[in-house]
Amino acid sequence: MTAVLLPPSADLDLAPLAAALTPRALVTDPDVVAAHSEDKALFCAVGQARALVRAATIEDVQATLRFAHAHAVPVVPQGARTGLSGGANAMDGAILLNVAKMNAVLDVNPVEKTATVQPGVVNLDLKKHLEPFGLAYPPDPGSVAISSIGGNVATNAGGLCCVKYGVTRDYVRSLKVVLADGSLTTVGRPTAKGVAGFELSHLFVGSEGTLGVVVEVTLDLVPALPDPLTAVGLFPTSTAAARTVTAFMESGAQPSMLEFIDGPTIGMINAYGDFGLDDGTGAMLLVQSNGDGSPERAQAELESFSRIARENGATDVTYSDDPRDSELLVAARRAISPAIEAYCHREHLGELVDDVCVPLARMADFSSALDAISARYPDNLIASCAHAGDGNFHPCVFFDQDSEESNRLAQEAFGEIMAAGLALGGTITGEHGVGYLKAEWLAKELDPASRALHLAIKNALDPKGILNPGKMLRAL
Amino acid sequence: MTAVLLPPSADLDLAPLAAALTPRALVTDPDVVAAHSEDKALFCAVGQARALVRAATIEDVQATLRFAHAHAVPVVPQGARTGLSGGANAMDGAILLNVAKMNAVLDVNPVEKTATVQPGVVNLDLKKHLEPFGLAYPPDPGSVAISSIGGNVATNAGGLCCVKYGVTRDYVRSLKVVLADGSLTTVGRPTAKGVAGFELSHLFVGSEGTLGVVVEVTLDLVPALPDPLTAVGLFPTSTAAARTVTAFMESGAQPSMLEFIDGPTIGMINAYGDFGLDDGTGAMLLVQSNGDGSPERAQAELESFSRIARENGATDVTYSDDPRDSELLVAARRAISPAIEAYCHREHLGELVDDVCVPLARMADFSSALDAISARYPDNLIASCAHAGDGNFHPCVFFDQDSEESNRLAQEAFGEIMAAGLALGGTITGEHGVGYLKAEWLAKELDPASRALHLAIKNALDPKGILNPGKMLRAL
Repeated sequence: MTAVLLPPSADLDLAPLAAALTPRALVTDPDVVAAHSEDKALFCAVGQARALVRAATIEDVQATLRFAHAHAVPVVPQGARTGLSGGANAMDGAILLNVAKMNAVLDVNPVEKTATVQPGVVNLDLKKHLEPFGLAYPPDPGSVAISSIGGNVATNAGGLCCVKYGVTRDYVRSLKVVLADGSLTTVGRPTAKGVAGFELSHLFVGSEGTLGVVVEVTLDLVPALPDPLTAVGLFPTSTAAARTVTAFMESGAQPSMLEFIDGPTIGMINAYGDFGLDDGTGAMLLVQSNGDGSPERAQAELESFSRIARENGATDVTYSDDPRDSELLVAARRAISPAIEAYCHREHLGELVDDVCVPLARMADFSSALDAISARYPDNLIASCAHAGDGNFHPCVFFDQDSEESNRLAQEAFGEIMAAGLALGGTITGEHGVGYLKAEWLAKELDPASRALHLAIKNALDPKGILNPGKMLRAL
Repeated sequence: MTAVLLPPSADLDLAPLAAALTPRALVTDPDVVAAHSEDKALFCAVGQARALVRAATIEDVQATLRFAHAHAVPVVPQGARTGLSGGANAMDGAILLNVAKMNAVLDVNPVEKTATVQPGVVNLDLKKHLEPFGLAYPPDPGSVAISSIGGNVATNAGGLCCVKYGVTRDYVRSLKVVLADGSLTTVGRPTAKGVAGFELSHLFVGSEGTLGVVVEVTLDLVPALPDPLTAVGLFPTSTAAARTVTAFMESGAQPSMLEFIDGPTIGMINAYGDFGLDDGTGAMLLVQSNGDGSPERAQAELESFSRIARENGATDVTYSDDPRDSELLVAARRAISPAIEAYCHREHLGELVDDVCVPLARMADFSSALDAISARYPDNLIASCAHAGDGNFHPCVFFDQDSEESNRLAQEAFGEIMAAGLALGGTITGEHGVGYLKAEWLAKELDPASRALHLAIKNALDPKGILNPGKMLRAL
């Protein structure tokens, strides 16, 4: 990239920007700017931004990018700032461009089965909005109650449903995007099918604010999902649970949820709330099947799970057709994040959450690799959960926040986990994204031609390099 | 684009290319080259290529592009040449790069539910290959028996299943692609989920040979699909059938097939074979539902169809749970292309097949627009079928091949059909692609920023403009 960004220390008159924006959209109060300068990731640089724009309209986004483009000022697109990779963190001298206030559901179309929303709509709010229509938007990241659709699109968010219902990108029909120079375009398809030109909407999904700012999203919906039945399998070891996942998926199963929780994580959940999980077990699998609306087929699928789990060493498998049991178990799964936070608070520890995804046939190998890494870092607890049906593990490495050595070891273990995933044919990030945290690792995952391709596309769309510099593409 | 292609008339020593290729892969015999210079579209320019490369390996593709890149020679990537938009047609001085011989199924992975194939594998051959595994690759373009996966990827092919099971892109997990300079890269995800970098595989899907040459495809598969039940509705007019589609889809239905055939097309099918369709009806709808494996739910969905069809003026609705009836009806639908060819041959006519897709709520409006266009062109029969559940119409405009005036009028009507689709919020092409045929129309569909974005990406990936010049992006 030949263009040079405005130095962070250079003077810049923001008055013309303020004049072009909705009144009071531009905020320069250092405390407010600082309060908007981070997402939920640890170990990611946080710089001092010049200003925060709370965009209220598409025109606000366009005006901000026109101004930034003219002056070569870095821009950090932001939504709810619930990301786990530092993608929304400030860099020195940047303008934070926050679209959280653009949070209207603009349209629900029951014929086309689509919803058109502004980027600031919170995922769970959209789900609730759709209920009276008998329609559903499946993607359900762990952050479903706090993360926004714009951020979900920027990171191609996943969740518990992916094993059957896919990820955010699978539901993006079209986007309105403001490009680096402030121009507005619509990409994607207006209809159920369409092949007029390149599929550019899918390029923006998961591009983490490096190619443009998403200002409107049209999502494909599905009819309301049938209620599932739930089973729980308890295992003496994580590896036995991992083997079960591989065998169950190989059997042709189509669970609507297949989650893995290891022993240490179960302990944290039980300490956090009254979920009745079986303490002292090595690992558990939480399985749901909705049989595509047939309770008989759901039941048969869970029976198949039970058989396969026992063949692979499960000590106990129970299932229930009482929806309240299901809700409690899913609530336990959803409690992992706050339970870990509570554990860290209680024990004065920090946590580094990984996000490696491996081929389903390598589940047990990855589980063994995690055990080996744990053994090499005896002073850093590593506790794991996984969206197991996708091979997507979230090993969590804990460290003593007051100890530099513990910090360093945690980061080393974090890297070894990614290296183990790559060695098994996996990826460094299944759903959390690259952001600031994993930029060096992205360079290890992509082949040389792919790295060049990423940079060629970035330069073509953002020749001045103003969009979220220093993040995803930093090390390519 | 500043680069200048080698003039078609310029001398070019092909010996170094021949030496770099598998023996006998390079063909310069003018008759053989000419025989490989067209796909199945009419009204598309066909130039005189310099040579044909029958690639047998990835290295052949790399060597060809390295050579073409060095000498700025245009390259036309080709598969089975069954396309309907002239995308595989030769231009003067080009090298035709045909990958039809690369036709091995490399791997089927029942745990991951993926198949890895070379681009020349014919769609139907893959489907048959997967049957013993209990797995299915749903996309089924009308050309399923003759078109290859590489071409399906290049055009993002659709078909009869899309209404429930989506298009080719929905099944592309990763691709090996040779870029314009001959470098090889892997794009997409190795795992069920993955967000490491931009989603570049989806950019290549549907790019019609303008960004790179796909040399290996890893496809997501699904468990074998349940057998459907089939219903047929007969209607006095196309518009009544179109209204039924809108109402049926609005009801939350999830048919696995929903096809529309108008009266003139029914006549052609009956003249072609013994399918027992009801001659003299205005239009018919062919519906399948598999109830996701529940015959009761499939039955209920067809009963719902029957009720909605009668409410919208159907004169008769029949359904059957005899698989033989279903097969016959689907065979009738699949016979449309050869039936039209036979009709053209019998009547000494040419045909121009359109591919407009409109929002489902506008089905009846589009049907009325087609009636109006037919009335304005009384000497050119317009017969339509549609993948109705997607809003994807294939109006076919017939003309007297010996009459310039009839030719001209057909092209005019063809344009009016696309204009009508765009005016209703639709697209000029639902699944056939832009190719040579609709390049001028693509410029009308895309907004100015999107046009610039297309060119920026094209220039970034193919700075010399050697990949399929004069096709999709010609008029942007």
